[in-house]
Amino acid sequence: MKKEYAVIGLGRFGGSICRELSQEGLEVLAIDLDEDKVNEYKEIASHAVIADSTDETVLRELGIRNIDHVIVAIGDNIQASLLTTVILEELGIKKITVKAQNDYHEKILSKIGADHVIHPERDMGKRIAHNIMSNNILDYIELSDDHSVVEVKAGSKMSGQSLVDLDIRAQYGCNVVAIKRQKDVIVSPMATEMIQEGDILIVIGADKDISRFEKNLVVEDD
Amino acid sequence: MKKEYAVIGLGRFGGSICRELSQEGLEVLAIDLDEDKVNEYKEIASHAVIADSTDETVLRELGIRNIDHVIVAIGDNIQASLLTTVILEELGIKKITVKAQNDYHEKILSKIGADHVIHPERDMGKRIAHNIMSNNILDYIELSDDHSVVEVKAGSKMSGQSLVDLDIRAQYGCNVVAIKRQKDVIVSPMATEMIQEGDILIVIGADKDISRFEKNLVVEDD
Ligand SMILES: Nc1ncnc2c1ncn2[C@@H]1O[C@H](COP(=O)(O)OP(=O)(O)OP(=O)(O)O)[C@@H](O)[C@H]1O
Ligand SMILES: Nc1ncnc2c1ncn2[C@@H]1O[C@H](COP(=O)(O)OP(=O)(O)OP(=O)(O)O)[C@@H](O)[C@H]1O
Ligand SMILES: [Ca+2]
Ligand SMILES: [Ca+2]
Ligand SMILES: [Ca+2]
Ligand SMILES: [Ca+2]
Repeated sequence: MKKEYAVIGLGRFGGSICRELSQEGLEVLAIDLDEDKVNEYKEIASHAVIADSTDETVLRELGIRNIDHVIVAIGDNIQASLLTTVILEELGIKKITVKAQNDYHEKILSKIGADHVIHPERDMGKRIAHNIMSNNILDYIELSDDHSVVEVKAGSKMSGQSLVDLDIRAQYGCNVVAIKRQKDVIVSPMATEMIQEGDILIVIGADKDISRFEKNLVVEDD
Repeated sequence: MKKEYAVIGLGRFGGSICRELSQEGLEVLAIDLDEDKVNEYKEIASHAVIADSTDETVLRELGIRNIDHVIVAIGDNIQASLLTTVILEELGIKKITVKAQNDYHEKILSKIGADHVIHPERDMGKRIAHNIMSNNILDYIELSDDHSVVEVKAGSKMSGQSLVDLDIRAQYGCNVVAIKRQKDVIVSPMATEMIQEGDILIVIGADKDISRFEKNLVVEDD
């Protein structure tokens, strides 16, 4: 059976989730108090309805109990977010994901049955801070406190040299696991692969090694 | 010379950037209209001041011209965000990063000199939608339209088997580039490495291959 989703609150965060899930062909019930928001998502989601999610009767009538996973993306109105979560939990929704405004909000959400609490602005702030500190790191996955996978622009010092010329593993202790070249991705590049201008390297290793690698081989772009 | 940063607007997004940069020991000038916000960041940032960033004289007096990179994280007040950006550009700030509320806002920001425009809620919505679609994918980097690096829980089907037993590269066309095991990260694991219960695998490859790998070897957790 296909999974069904509901998104309550079609702000920027909830709206983006609704759009992405719908684009993948998933069934999404989009709910907002605001008529304009609902109209905006009428073409995108399988169903879009104007409703107040703090009204249990309305949620029942919408058949919310048949939904596998509900995302509560109500922002400023913390009380509405909490009340909605309580109702969903009481209706027996298996999976409830909720956007939190702050730590206090998160604490209550976890107590009342939210399965997953998200701080979109805070988490994106962290990611952007990483990008800001290193002009060259485009994206990353934090594997542990001291290991990461990073996407880094190849510096001009590197162009025309092969991975074996640069001796990255021995010199810096980190591994180039893929190269992005225009629209192509070269997974597990051979040691003889030549770095070209504009290449983007996917590097895995200890943060201190990645940082040394970046300082030595990657030119600042500003 | 050490780089200096300013963050204007200490909401959740701007506040998070301010905190992260400060934690790395960087000089951050934190600015907000709101006294409570400024007090909150007094202990965190090198300097925190109450100021209206749409007032050019005030910004000049704060010495904003000596700052290398200014992040404008004003939210709902789009007009203040635009005006602040124009002033920063006129004052000759080299690097201006601005939070946008929508596409229209972004368009104007790019025209008036913002070097980098960010949509935190929208981008985090995309990331969360990915997590939601796959319960097992914990984090990811999109390398291209059809390739990714993903962080995926090892399914119980995998425990006690080595990478060579599972024959992942041949069977699924994707590579396990690291294994996260409790607090350790095993980079470039050997083919004989045994997968253990609770391991997290870092897998790189084509999206369709990763998705097949995930469907076949990773058990749903709900
Ligand atoms: N009780 C409710 N029932 C349904 N929708 C609601 C309810 N309360 C608020 N919403 C809707 O939730 C949406 C998001 O709320 P709001 O704009 O306050 O959040 P936000 O955190 O600023 O959003 P974002 O940062 O994601 O853009 C709004 O479109 C609002 O109409
Ligand atoms: N002209 C201004 N000068 C300085 N600070 C400002 C100005 N206008 C707004 N701010 C501050 O910017 C901060 C962020 O604004 P707001 O709360 O509207 O954004 P938001 O997008 O909801 O924030 P977030 O989603 O990041 O929490 C607020 O703390 C506000 O006081
Ligand atoms: Ca629950
Ligand atoms: Ca917001
Ligand atoms: Ca807001
Ligand atoms: Ca500029």
